[in-house]
Amino acid sequence: MTLNEIIRPTFLVDKQICINNIERMAQKAKMANVRFRPHFKTHQSAQIGDWFRDFGVSAITVSSVEMAAYFAKNGWLDITIAFPVNLPEINKINHLSSEINLNLLVENIEAATALKEAITHKTGVYIKIDTGYRRTGLAYSNMESIDKIIFILKKNNSLIFRGFLSHTGHTYTARNHSEIVARLNDALVKLRTLKDFYSNIFPDVEISIGDTPSCSILNQFQDADEIRPGNFVFYDLTMYNLGVCRLKDIAVKLVCPVVARHLERSEMVIYGGAIHLSKDYVVHRKGFKDFGRIVIRKNGESVVLTDDNYVSKISQEHGTLKVMPEYFIDIHVGGLVEIIPAHSCLTAQQARYYLTTDGEMLKTLNS
Amino acid sequence: MTLNEIIRPTFLVDKQICINNIERMAQKAKMANVRFRPHFKTHQSAQIGDWFRDFGVSAITVSSVEMAAYFAKNGWLDITIAFPVNLPEINKINHLSSEINLNLLVENIEAATALKEAITHKTGVYIKIDTGYRRTGLAYSNMESIDKIIFILKKNNSLIFRGFLSHTGHTYTARNHSEIVARLNDALVKLRTLKDFYSNIFPDVEISIGDTPSCSILNQFQDADEIRPGNFVFYDLTMYNLGVCRLKDIAVKLVCPVVARHLERSEMVIYGGAIHLSKDYVVHRKGFKDFGRIVIRKNGESVVLTDDNYVSKISQEHGTLKVMPEYFIDIHVGGLVEIIPAHSCLTAQQARYYLTTDGEMLKTLNS
Repeated sequence: MTLNEIIRPTFLVDKQICINNIERMAQKAKMANVRFRPHFKTHQSAQIGDWFRDFGVSAITVSSVEMAAYFAKNGWLDITIAFPVNLPEINKINHLSSEINLNLLVENIEAATALKEAITHKTGVYIKIDTGYRRTGLAYSNMESIDKIIFILKKNNSLIFRGFLSHTGHTYTARNHSEIVARLNDALVKLRTLKDFYSNIFPDVEISIGDTPSCSILNQFQDADEIRPGNFVFYDLTMYNLGVCRLKDIAVKLVCPVVARHLERSEMVIYGGAIHLSKDYVVHRKGFKDFGRIVIRKNGESVVLTDDNYVSKISQEHGTLKVMPEYFIDIHVGGLVEIIPAHSCLTAQQARYYLTTDGEMLKTLNS
Repeated sequence: MTLNEIIRPTFLVDKQICINNIERMAQKAKMANVRFRPHFKTHQSAQIGDWFRDFGVSAITVSSVEMAAYFAKNGWLDITIAFPVNLPEINKINHLSSEINLNLLVENIEAATALKEAITHKTGVYIKIDTGYRRTGLAYSNMESIDKIIFILKKNNSLIFRGFLSHTGHTYTARNHSEIVARLNDALVKLRTLKDFYSNIFPDVEISIGDTPSCSILNQFQDADEIRPGNFVFYDLTMYNLGVCRLKDIAVKLVCPVVARHLERSEMVIYGGAIHLSKDYVVHRKGFKDFGRIVIRKNGESVVLTDDNYVSKISQEHGTLKVMPEYFIDIHVGGLVEIIPAHSCLTAQQARYYLTTDGEMLKTLNS
């Protein structure tokens, strides 16, 4: 299938840009002497996963048991599920850890106790530390609970305590590079305190960190042992607005047919809505919700329109575009436009397959 | 499968509530002497579609060619695609209209011209009128374009002009019942002007309207010939906040495992995020984003918690709940809570199957 054959909203992936993004991050991890354990929740595709192998990647991160099973089936033998362990799936977890090296995340005593009772095969466990994002995890200063969890885990010989894992998600809301750097460094200091304290008893205790903003702009990660960025393989408008990638590093677009044009209000409507792009948005510099930037093809060239042109509203199948009058000559009902998504992970997640710019169809977990 | 066997985020449908909602709306349409052409984009399930047949429904509305093909395959022979015709799918449209009674939506001259050239089998066409929602459609006063479109359509004998269709989507942002009524009545007056004008030449010209808010509270629809509500089969928190349904009319919930509890900040975290609930929200009376209300099971009974308890943040797989301290005794890590979604259409759309409270698994377009 080629671009010209697109008749419905289609998630388009530029493989070469992805490869460049993977190579850059793999190289950075190597120079910084940390394990590169990329998060595969962004692409959720076995074929894209394979692109990472050429750069020496053999350990990955996922966000659900289902996703772990999908990638295990596709030959990945070292997987961390970076989501607080979902206890009702314990049988699936035991099955998985009988087949691959599986790491789980624990952030409370209830989960540790349940794992102690139920885990039947060798399984790694990271304790989730909240370094400021306030979503999940124990405070680094909560040594009492950390001690208790380690004590409980030790009672089951199949449970191997690996170390401390954190997701510095508050880098996404930083206002500039220095805030990103400050938030990651603050997290690393907190995690080092724990590593220093526990390395007497557990000499192999690890620190695992990794969000795309900080991993994109930092080159050194202090005492971290591994990084787990995910979004960087595609990047998106959120990352561009945060200043951690260039527009030309964004590897994905949603190609959408145009169904209506309303010059009197500088608007067009595309077949491409919340069920394709998701309802995630960035805040436009003028304060509006911005669900995506517009790209058109002109004389065979891809042209990114100025940021006065953007997806301004979104409903189930409809996307409303603000389009400046001078572009109405280039965009026709029945023609295609391309949208740079606000959030590539959620846009990818809603596609049942991806099309590459080379015309290859890629399957995903949702195919 | 039963409720107790749920191990992942699961879309739960109460069939009896759906049946009640369908019956009420079918009865209302009958009393008001309008055709009931429900919108099936809300449930997208062949099995739920079948529940409508007992109430005499034989004509339906969908929002894409793909959805039309799905329901045609499942025995629906009279389908309106209530979305501006997507011209790149013209071959699929011709194929469909060779098999069923298909109606399309046209809102511009380009689309009319393309259909005139390309349509090969008898196909109905409604002209989309914008009655104030400002998403798609021609202004009712734009008789020049309406005339032109009708003139173009007449050049292809397979194209049958059916009438005028409008979606009064601005009832969703009304502040009270009188605003909903006022907006629908305003739309009906505009559409009647057109009907009166064109009925000399087209005695069968129709008016098609239908959004869930107005169809839920009005009992008469003036000169409308059909109503097309969709959301009412499930309802949701948006409709409840708008005052057009009761909590007990909401037929769906997302059942989610709890993975973390943080009493110090009155928060819990569930496995259930944007990829399950979508990022749609209602505005909580205190001004916050509210992605869903919380329901727990207590002594076998379903208990809707007060609105101080709600889904306050959402990311890819995580949902963060605000939970008042007094409920911490009832909700455990590894246990389940149920979420009344802000927007049932988008939540349903992301599920690969539905579970009914009777333990039946329902397939959908996305299965």
